[in-house]
Amino acid sequence: MKLYDVTAAPNPRRVRVFLAEKGIEVPTVQVDMRRGEHRTPEFLRRNPSGKVPVLELDDGTCIAESVAICRYFEALHPEPPLFGADPVSIGLVDMANRQLEFELLGPVGQAWVNGPVVARLLPDRQQIPAAKEQGERAARAFYRRLNDQLAASRFIAGEAFSVADITALCVIDFAAELVDLRPEDELAELWRWHAEVSSRPSASA
Amino acid sequence: MKLYDVTAAPNPRRVRVFLAEKGIEVPTVQVDMRRGEHRTPEFLRRNPSGKVPVLELDDGTCIAESVAICRYFEALHPEPPLFGADPVSIGLVDMANRQLEFELLGPVGQAWVNGPVVARLLPDRQQIPAAKEQGERAARAFYRRLNDQLAASRFIAGEAFSVADITALCVIDFAAELVDLRPEDELAELWRWHAEVSSRPSASA
Repeated sequence: MKLYDVTAAPNPRRVRVFLAEKGIEVPTVQVDMRRGEHRTPEFLRRNPSGKVPVLELDDGTCIAESVAICRYFEALHPEPPLFGADPVSIGLVDMANRQLEFELLGPVGQAWVNGPVVARLLPDRQQIPAAKEQGERAARAFYRRLNDQLAASRFIAGEAFSVADITALCVIDFAAELVDLRPEDELAELWRWHAEVSSRPSASA
Repeated sequence: MKLYDVTAAPNPRRVRVFLAEKGIEVPTVQVDMRRGEHRTPEFLRRNPSGKVPVLELDDGTCIAESVAICRYFEALHPEPPLFGADPVSIGLVDMANRQLEFELLGPVGQAWVNGPVVARLLPDRQQIPAAKEQGERAARAFYRRLNDQLAASRFIAGEAFSVADITALCVIDFAAELVDLRPEDELAELWRWHAEVSSRPSASA
């Protein structure tokens, strides 16, 4: 088994943090996206989307998509549960995780692909400045909502640490470091939560 | 328990089809989005995202996000399994479902919100024509990929019907009927699959 990985990207980090929380070690293979290794025919056979991460099993089966990889490991190693422990928490964790993906990761990604770094790395890609601004506004609005939610609970989806906290941590760190979208200092509950999840050993994965 | 629903929208339909496949009946409440009922303080307390569907449990707990609602019911009523039956199929079904969401539903939605119907219904919303065209191109590229995948398997994620088939059916029907993005006639494998899933009783839910 091996995990195709890109150290600096937020989605592969989600899988690495998840594995660290589970205490699972998986060998990784770095994919050099600047050299286009995710666009080779060989890689596209593993994942036609051309995205990283991809988990390749020993029989050659490939599972792409960070959360799908995490669900595979959750099914193999249920403890500690990171996708909820009963029907209601399973629903609420997935709700929180999906809202983070569609309403924060999506807009952050929109700002990223229409921003200066991608413009430099991929000069042929169509840049849409209005989409960049729309993404930035949506991300900042979601930060405020997250701050309000975190005033009422220790973690994103309640009192238990879950995959939603991993998603939020990886997206916010990426947004702050690479997309110039650091949450405002005044969002005290968000930063209280960020300090706690950042102090877990898994955060350095 | 009740399901806040919008009959014509693709995401609530995903939940209705899922429930029909499971043989579960849940009372529905129609939300009139044209009258802004999804933006009232009362509705935003149920789902701060202002999106439909939302499942409200008898104790007032609200689960938003179509797939999160489906996972709640999958945990309550595991048979027939629609999210995979073992770790590998759990991973592969989630991969297929997520790729459909990010690489087909996302682009279709991008074409929809920047298209003529939304421009008429929500005149204050910023329209980005380049984003509409980008969404259309991405959706049409994904149809071809789906057609290739369906040449090798009966259903989207292999030989078993799954939530990924429900997602694909609801997105493609919405795209064809309301976004002017009907898959090309020449995509024979896609239409073979579409005929089969459309003939299941759940498709009319």
